[in-house]
Amino acid sequence: MELLKQKILNEGKVISDQILKVDSFLNHQIDPVLMEAIGTEFAKRFAQSKVTKVLTLEASGIAVALMTGLALRVPVVFAKKKRPSTLTDTAYFGRIHSFTKEEDVDIMVSANYLNNNDRVLVIDDFLATGEASRGMIEIVHQAGATLVGVGIVIEKAFQDGGNSLRDEGVRVESLARIAKLENGSIYFL
Amino acid sequence: MELLKQKILNEGKVISDQILKVDSFLNHQIDPVLMEAIGTEFAKRFAQSKVTKVLTLEASGIAVALMTGLALRVPVVFAKKKRPSTLTDTAYFGRIHSFTKEEDVDIMVSANYLNNNDRVLVIDDFLATGEASRGMIEIVHQAGATLVGVGIVIEKAFQDGGNSLRDEGVRVESLARIAKLENGSIYFL
Repeated sequence: MELLKQKILNEGKVISDQILKVDSFLNHQIDPVLMEAIGTEFAKRFAQSKVTKVLTLEASGIAVALMTGLALRVPVVFAKKKRPSTLTDTAYFGRIHSFTKEEDVDIMVSANYLNNNDRVLVIDDFLATGEASRGMIEIVHQAGATLVGVGIVIEKAFQDGGNSLRDEGVRVESLARIAKLENGSIYFL
Repeated sequence: MELLKQKILNEGKVISDQILKVDSFLNHQIDPVLMEAIGTEFAKRFAQSKVTKVLTLEASGIAVALMTGLALRVPVVFAKKKRPSTLTDTAYFGRIHSFTKEEDVDIMVSANYLNNNDRVLVIDDFLATGEASRGMIEIVHQAGATLVGVGIVIEKAFQDGGNSLRDEGVRVESLARIAKLENGSIYFL
């Protein structure tokens, strides 16, 4: 997606050969017009998939997932990272390891909002090791729902999460795939 | 906002005389079409306020804030609840007490995304004691920015947060104001 790649080149900050910060339009400040374009693009790519729910993970995934759900006219569910005290329903759980925050995180979705008739599109901002996507896919499986695919804004293709999911037959659509981060520069695949 | 009130009456769950759950369209599952209508309504109410930034708090505020930012054509900034390891910038801080989660939470916004030229609309899903709004207002003040007002989806008007902010001269626009929760029923002001 050309508009996104330009934005990454113009505003992305290469912190190290592993870490790219896109805080100015995706992870802290959000560009709503770009999010709308991204949602429209995901909706186009998964237009034939009969999606009934978009699933993402709080917090950074919510903006992208919301715009995708709006474009597809289906509800969005965001997995929560901690069981809130007001949540007393039966729930599905996944566990993910965050390498950025150096901790394990349990994520959960109430059983009220995913069921075995659902066709689920998993959406996330970043894909690197694939931990977050796998946690969400685990939840889709627990619900007995059908995974139609995974939509990612920025894939760090130099880490193995994306290709390992593809090897398992998961449809992964990434709008920008980064081949490497080197000497402060960003190289797309 | 009539559409919102109907949704609250149809899908809201009264957990106690203090707690209303709207997990089916706002806090866990999100209805993107309703969010769009809410964003349009806030944009209409603050159309004359020359808003340059929408500020909210992760995670539940993001969907509403994003749609408001889209309608106003301005960036959205979401305050983070924990300093991420990738954040090395100068930042503004606020502290809020979450009565739902029974804990104090520090919230922060990078100084890159708010400055003294900004005219900030604070957006949140709920207003009860006003703790979250006050934490965000503290951040607006630290940035030297101008607060144009606070937009709230659901105000628990039986708690004093909203009126105490209004008494201080803050413009608070709540789309649904709940007078009381009693015997499982919801009463609007």
